[in-house]
Amino acid sequence: MFLSNLRFGVALAGALLSTAAFADPLPSWNDVDAKSRITAFVESVTDPQGDSYVTPGDRVAVFDNDGTLWAEQPAYFQLFFAMDRVSQLAEADPSILTSDVLKAAAAGDLKGVFADGEKGLLEVINLSHSGMSVDAFISDVQGWLDTARHPETGMAFDQMIYQPMLELLSYLRDEGFETYIVSGGGVHFIRAFAETAYNIPPEQVIGSATKTSYQIVDGVPLVVKEPGIAFVDDKAGKPVGIDSKIGKRPIFVSGNSDGDFQMLEWATAGEGPRFGLIVHHTDSAREYAYDRDSHIGQLARGLDEGPERGWLIVDMARDWARIWPAE
Amino acid sequence: MFLSNLRFGVALAGALLSTAAFADPLPSWNDVDAKSRITAFVESVTDPQGDSYVTPGDRVAVFDNDGTLWAEQPAYFQLFFAMDRVSQLAEADPSILTSDVLKAAAAGDLKGVFADGEKGLLEVINLSHSGMSVDAFISDVQGWLDTARHPETGMAFDQMIYQPMLELLSYLRDEGFETYIVSGGGVHFIRAFAETAYNIPPEQVIGSATKTSYQIVDGVPLVVKEPGIAFVDDKAGKPVGIDSKIGKRPIFVSGNSDGDFQMLEWATAGEGPRFGLIVHHTDSAREYAYDRDSHIGQLARGLDEGPERGWLIVDMARDWARIWPAE
Repeated sequence: MFLSNLRFGVALAGALLSTAAFADPLPSWNDVDAKSRITAFVESVTDPQGDSYVTPGDRVAVFDNDGTLWAEQPAYFQLFFAMDRVSQLAEADPSILTSDVLKAAAAGDLKGVFADGEKGLLEVINLSHSGMSVDAFISDVQGWLDTARHPETGMAFDQMIYQPMLELLSYLRDEGFETYIVSGGGVHFIRAFAETAYNIPPEQVIGSATKTSYQIVDGVPLVVKEPGIAFVDDKAGKPVGIDSKIGKRPIFVSGNSDGDFQMLEWATAGEGPRFGLIVHHTDSAREYAYDRDSHIGQLARGLDEGPERGWLIVDMARDWARIWPAE
Repeated sequence: MFLSNLRFGVALAGALLSTAAFADPLPSWNDVDAKSRITAFVESVTDPQGDSYVTPGDRVAVFDNDGTLWAEQPAYFQLFFAMDRVSQLAEADPSILTSDVLKAAAAGDLKGVFADGEKGLLEVINLSHSGMSVDAFISDVQGWLDTARHPETGMAFDQMIYQPMLELLSYLRDEGFETYIVSGGGVHFIRAFAETAYNIPPEQVIGSATKTSYQIVDGVPLVVKEPGIAFVDDKAGKPVGIDSKIGKRPIFVSGNSDGDFQMLEWATAGEGPRFGLIVHHTDSAREYAYDRDSHIGQLARGLDEGPERGWLIVDMARDWARIWPAE
């Protein structure tokens, strides 16, 4: 009995091992160049006998969020949240709508929200993203994600995440990488869903941030979101944010817009093996097609310089067999 | 042959397991109250059958550095580094000593450095902590640690770390905790030795920070340290820094001065089991004895309110069998 169980166990372990070794870690990636470049890199840095071996502690992979891990059209999803929140606050107290921009936000009028440039956007962010504890804000975002729907697809926003990128995150983690989000979006906003959506815990989310303060409110110690911006994690802010929070130069870096250029440039300039990846939105049938002239996620310099820098430009239409998890 | 090897293996595994279960994880802690309170807490939150069980992802432990993990008298060790660096820079170019405070720093005159208050300290920090890449700064600190010696003990600064705290860090990690440093000291300064000294990687070091910028210097992309302070990770800044970088409220928190009060207050006010620990410097024979009236590491409110808040006040003289690793 013991021996036959042992034999069965050995056989089972062998079967599992060979399944693991031969299973396709990226089933939603078509079998073209992009996929094999990714797997060749990962195999090279994880082979302890190879010249390109990287110890697990240095296998740091960073991912932009908007347009890289989830969709970003026709506007950043966080802006839909902000407008819905302004609208909800205005129902309770219409006198808070002290400007045309705030009135536009409450009405869900995207053009009106952008009409006053950055100053107007900051008004919308200040009203919708401050005056509550971080914990309360995260609960609000989670409640919003449960009910809000994308204006064009009708999908829940947190279902508009890219299945091929979920597989890539999971593959990298299985191969000993730490996977971080490095986003121009708000750090607290992203933490509200990153663990559920991407299996990325709060301490591995880096993002832009409102000011915060420590306060005792009715005897309860809280970290509270305040008006104003403490950090902009975009463009040259991305390497700065990565240095501040991780303190290592990533070896795998993935973005989709010129807001990610400096992060790609800095990470891939490091010594040893490096991998840069740009998601190029080329699929107007299944998702969106945009690059140089887009008001969101503009990508020009990355297209011009990426290939000669050795970065992989992922052609969504060609390289991805599937877009959404729920497909 | 196979079976006897198997039996040997099972016996060996059993022996290793029972060693692990019964070995003292904190041999440099005397067998008094403090030690048993720590182990009782850790056992309670790691027992999956118990009411106090905490899942590994939420086992976040944070430690102040100066006075908690290493010594801080007669002045913060980072200040000795800063003065040595000013002195070294002045050898190459004496004209940089544009103020009495900078001249005092170059001469190693602590009193003179403090004579102009915060403004003077900022001059010393700006001169010694900016104008180079983060990588170059970290190399500088490592070179300094190799040769500099403490003015009173003659020990290397990174040997003046507390053996009982090393054991506590290690014990917590073995029990599935993530261990972070949350220090008023500089994040880049601490990262220069935290991995070697404490087995804490860069991404688990939170600290005060100079401004930094992303720059292309002679074609090389770098993160560069700039004059000015970006973040002060002290007092109310500690909960703010933890929220920003970890995004979770720690369940184990350890400090030694009133600069750690808010971090202790916030962390131990969270729901579920929490542990607050204050290292009380009571050992003038083996280390230093100071609290309420010290110009460095002042501890008054923590002594007054800590016990009623359930925080453990570690009496260094009574609770620690050994201070330094090299003893």
